[in-house]
Amino acid sequence: MNIPQSSKKRVVIIGGGFAGIALAKKLRNKNFQVVLIDKHNHHTFQPLLYQVATGGLEAGSIAYPIRKVIQGCTDFYFRLTTVKEIDPNHQKVLSEIGDIHYDYLVIATGSKTNYFGNKEIERNSMSMKTIPQSLNIRSLILENFEEAVLTKDELERNALMNFVLVGGGPTGVELAGALAEMKKAIFQKDYPDLDIQKMQIHLIQSGDRILNTMTEKSSIASENFLKELGVKIWKNVRVTNYDGRTITTNTNLVLDAATVIWTAGVQGACIHGLPEESVVERVERIRVNEFNQVKGFENIFAIGDIASMESELYPQGHPMMAQPAIQQGNLLADNLLNLQQNKSMKAFVYDDKGSMATIGRNLAVVDLPKCHFNGVFAWFVWMFVHLFSLIGFKNKAVVFLNWVYNYIRFDREGRLIIRPYKKKSFITFTSDEI
Amino acid sequence: MNIPQSSKKRVVIIGGGFAGIALAKKLRNKNFQVVLIDKHNHHTFQPLLYQVATGGLEAGSIAYPIRKVIQGCTDFYFRLTTVKEIDPNHQKVLSEIGDIHYDYLVIATGSKTNYFGNKEIERNSMSMKTIPQSLNIRSLILENFEEAVLTKDELERNALMNFVLVGGGPTGVELAGALAEMKKAIFQKDYPDLDIQKMQIHLIQSGDRILNTMTEKSSIASENFLKELGVKIWKNVRVTNYDGRTITTNTNLVLDAATVIWTAGVQGACIHGLPEESVVERVERIRVNEFNQVKGFENIFAIGDIASMESELYPQGHPMMAQPAIQQGNLLADNLLNLQQNKSMKAFVYDDKGSMATIGRNLAVVDLPKCHFNGVFAWFVWMFVHLFSLIGFKNKAVVFLNWVYNYIRFDREGRLIIRPYKKKSFITFTSDEI
Repeated sequence: MNIPQSSKKRVVIIGGGFAGIALAKKLRNKNFQVVLIDKHNHHTFQPLLYQVATGGLEAGSIAYPIRKVIQGCTDFYFRLTTVKEIDPNHQKVLSEIGDIHYDYLVIATGSKTNYFGNKEIERNSMSMKTIPQSLNIRSLILENFEEAVLTKDELERNALMNFVLVGGGPTGVELAGALAEMKKAIFQKDYPDLDIQKMQIHLIQSGDRILNTMTEKSSIASENFLKELGVKIWKNVRVTNYDGRTITTNTNLVLDAATVIWTAGVQGACIHGLPEESVVERVERIRVNEFNQVKGFENIFAIGDIASMESELYPQGHPMMAQPAIQQGNLLADNLLNLQQNKSMKAFVYDDKGSMATIGRNLAVVDLPKCHFNGVFAWFVWMFVHLFSLIGFKNKAVVFLNWVYNYIRFDREGRLIIRPYKKKSFITFTSDEI
Repeated sequence: MNIPQSSKKRVVIIGGGFAGIALAKKLRNKNFQVVLIDKHNHHTFQPLLYQVATGGLEAGSIAYPIRKVIQGCTDFYFRLTTVKEIDPNHQKVLSEIGDIHYDYLVIATGSKTNYFGNKEIERNSMSMKTIPQSLNIRSLILENFEEAVLTKDELERNALMNFVLVGGGPTGVELAGALAEMKKAIFQKDYPDLDIQKMQIHLIQSGDRILNTMTEKSSIASENFLKELGVKIWKNVRVTNYDGRTITTNTNLVLDAATVIWTAGVQGACIHGLPEESVVERVERIRVNEFNQVKGFENIFAIGDIASMESELYPQGHPMMAQPAIQQGNLLADNLLNLQQNKSMKAFVYDDKGSMATIGRNLAVVDLPKCHFNGVFAWFVWMFVHLFSLIGFKNKAVVFLNWVYNYIRFDREGRLIIRPYKKKSFITFTSDEI
């Protein structure tokens, strides 16, 4: 990896997400040699991926170069590569560009889409955890409309204009709202030769309410908002399969759709090499203690989405969101400094600042620890918090400018197919065959 | 293509570049049925592609959805497809989504990179005529630096930091300047473990001056600007081959470089189906008369880069730039209306508004028909003209904001590898082999 030996202890951080970046920032020039590894050369502001997918923002506005984060730091190295495995016995990370020794290892690899083992759904549906995935969704949505314009087969045309979002969490809700707004403000005008009323947006939730990690008030308010926008919500319905054309469920609901976006589950982006008992089965998160130490190790830590810190308040670990990740990253920096100075480490206590989701224009729901509100004010709070959280002044300014423009003009000019998405298997039936 | 028959005459326009869009805009609601065909769903502002390639602007800022251009027009259709051939005998355009009949056909397909038949150069070098190509260059530049960080082989590291631009026209000059500024302001800070002084930028020009379509004053000024920025300029040198590693020329200049960007020639993006005598050999442009009518046809027109209108003043046709394209598009709209009203057509006269190129921060050259100037003021003129020419308020605002930010901060935050570029053949020699 071409990293010089140093007299300082080496901290290797895998992952430049919210957790990894928070940690890296606080470890600047702190008498450690730090190596930050990521498979992308940029940090991604995941909460706004859905806006990239729906043409509201350009990809570059929610990405930030990792090398810029660590500019000017001494003995701080970034390496662009994919980690294959870790070898705790030899304190080594095995990557595609070689092996690297660590004194402290921090796993901050985040999460990835969980298909719960269904390979056919994985093959045929879209997921949205990275910028390229969001851009693929954007291309696919627009390609479907371009195809819908061409076909004379009504069933096929309807399927091309059917959008099914599986999972009623924030991502599903926000995407549903954004698509509904595109239907009204954009597709209506862009495709005058299509009957846009036929465009349908379905949100399928396996539980009995959407946004079920938030308060019941938020669930009810967001459901009402979405219904007003024309989104069809299906609760207590579990998707059993999607063959690229037809979605089947555990009820008698069957839908034909060219686009299925799967946001129904996440799992830790786990790395090979840890003993089985360190990993929580099914969700693939890494068990950590209150200091974010991986069970069984003193010098391996996990922070953010990948870390499952079970506690009385959070028996299944903390929610997989930016806030716990940032707070764990910050605390771990302090704790590594404590270790260096032979002080004792501080236990992590999650400071829940609340959660929020936006549904559309003037519509959001906000749960603070002690109160709930929704509507226009919630929407402004949502925008302010997200703008404020973006890294970098330029990104903040460009996102703000886009939002103001989109708001005034009811528009999203990013409806661009820059790189076509090659859908693997949208099966076209001709009228004769049906 | 699913386009209804209409009592109006049908104009089919192939290509949504400067010429096609200018024509389409003026044909709105003018008693024609208009069909606009493009293989992208967006118009590309090509003069700023080099800024996308060097991380100064996001791709979406220089692209504009074509469907938005024709929003609200009656009997106006956009179709996203690639044209395979035209069949003048049956007045048909053959495309990947079917055939379409035309009453008037307008070919506005623009130009593409000309490798003068050298397949090895074509395979191994980068070109920059579309947004995906610019994004590939951006990825490659950054990947090369990430690789340079890893290698201990000095020759390989130098080759990874060598950038060769072939062609001393505006594209080559602007890219050279942008790379030189990145070297100074960004790579220096982003890669502290590299000796950035070893980064070299070579500009190879076959003629005896760069910017040879501009005045001699502009050539001299731009040469001086580039030299100050550390760019090595090679004149009267012709590249003979590039195998992915080594560039050979018709002189004793031999360079090792991982990145070669080929801007040394363009040719018309010609379509099959026209008789041989309509096409200018070697440059593949279509011969047109003073009304932009393709030689031999009354109802087929060609406008913009693809059209070669030979005249006393322009014996090889007009320069392949935005201005002649826009002017021809505008005039053709008038002429089609004249034809409709049985009036005679007006001959095209190019109104040369001048040309310009930017080299870097505060440095540009401007040739107006009657005067030349360069330096800071020229740079402001360049910026104003380009901002003003971008389609859409949002794009203008976002580009302006980026430029202000980049100017104040000496930065280009778009240094993102969103989709890695898989280079086909950078041959790695180990030290032993050399």
